[in-house]
Amino acid sequence: MTLLDLMRNRRSIRKYKKQTFSTKEILQVLEAGKLAPSGANQQPWTYILVTDKRLKQKIRKEAETVEESFHREAPKPLKNWFKEQGITPQKNFLTEAPALIVVAGYTKVPYWLESTWISIAYILLQAASQGFGTLTYTPSDTSFLNQLLKIPKDYQPVAIIPIGYPAEKPSPETRPRKPLETFVHRDKYGSMHVSETTGTTLTA
Amino acid sequence: MTLLDLMRNRRSIRKYKKQTFSTKEILQVLEAGKLAPSGANQQPWTYILVTDKRLKQKIRKEAETVEESFHREAPKPLKNWFKEQGITPQKNFLTEAPALIVVAGYTKVPYWLESTWISIAYILLQAASQGFGTLTYTPSDTSFLNQLLKIPKDYQPVAIIPIGYPAEKPSPETRPRKPLETFVHRDKYGSMHVSETTGTTLTA
Repeated sequence: MTLLDLMRNRRSIRKYKKQTFSTKEILQVLEAGKLAPSGANQQPWTYILVTDKRLKQKIRKEAETVEESFHREAPKPLKNWFKEQGITPQKNFLTEAPALIVVAGYTKVPYWLESTWISIAYILLQAASQGFGTLTYTPSDTSFLNQLLKIPKDYQPVAIIPIGYPAEKPSPETRPRKPLETFVHRDKYGSMHVSETTGTTLTA
Repeated sequence: MTLLDLMRNRRSIRKYKKQTFSTKEILQVLEAGKLAPSGANQQPWTYILVTDKRLKQKIRKEAETVEESFHREAPKPLKNWFKEQGITPQKNFLTEAPALIVVAGYTKVPYWLESTWISIAYILLQAASQGFGTLTYTPSDTSFLNQLLKIPKDYQPVAIIPIGYPAEKPSPETRPRKPLETFVHRDKYGSMHVSETTGTTLTA
């Protein structure tokens, strides 16, 4: 499978099998995360691998509390989207996935947030290449993770990535992507769509 | 080559060959960008592909002006790092690379910044898989790009990615990565390093 195929076929997974896997396999996923480029090579990411059952339950409970108020106060379009997609404040995947990767960034270095999200992308792709399902779940407030996981305050948790073998198979039509032309402009925004020039040679 | 190898071998490229390539090849790189997952599937990224010589010169001039003041005011550790790495306010790559991909994010949707950086990671990896060199250059102020490229104010440019065939081959020792153990914790931050448990089976 090419890299493009891997990217094209990956879908967020919300249902996970109980099937377990070795720490070695998950370390390989995290290895990808730490290979990401970072601003000034500061490597500001940190990963807390959570497998403890009670801890996952606590995380889920806190996350659902945060989500309930977020859903209540969400802007209308987001509310509609949640409804369409069947997304509720309930976060079953937080206890059902065999493992959670909590990703935090060290906020005292430049470009920490940007770098940490590149690292997350690397993790998602490597996980997919190993047959794992993942989801990038970003609680609207993550400070409860600092408390539960004893993460120092200079590190900001930015995402929880549940990981495990998928127990659902979303069709490629789930979360359809807009055509490339929607996003690409040539030299100036809106001035000319690059699709018009497909196949021509770029001159330096 | 495995995905991990691709990630491991990729290095930021600051020197580019004049050798040109087809628009089709670069569209394939951007195709990867649009395959990224995004918050609420909002696909908030936009790519302006800049190949016009005079436009690249203008971008470079504005970027260098911004960088000069940034370097002057940078905190000491960053200043030292710039010096060590030979990074100056001069941004030759902005005119030397055959093409620049200016990536902007639509700021009116949730998680626009996070999603846009995942998209950038996808672009970097796909470019590497096609043999292209890239660099993630983040000017400390990007508003000049809105003006030069007529990008609407609701879109915030976040990075300029020069792209082209590499005219340098940084050794794997450039920008060395810290060992994985530095970043990974098990269940609680600092409580136990996951390396202690390598090879054991995770239980759900």
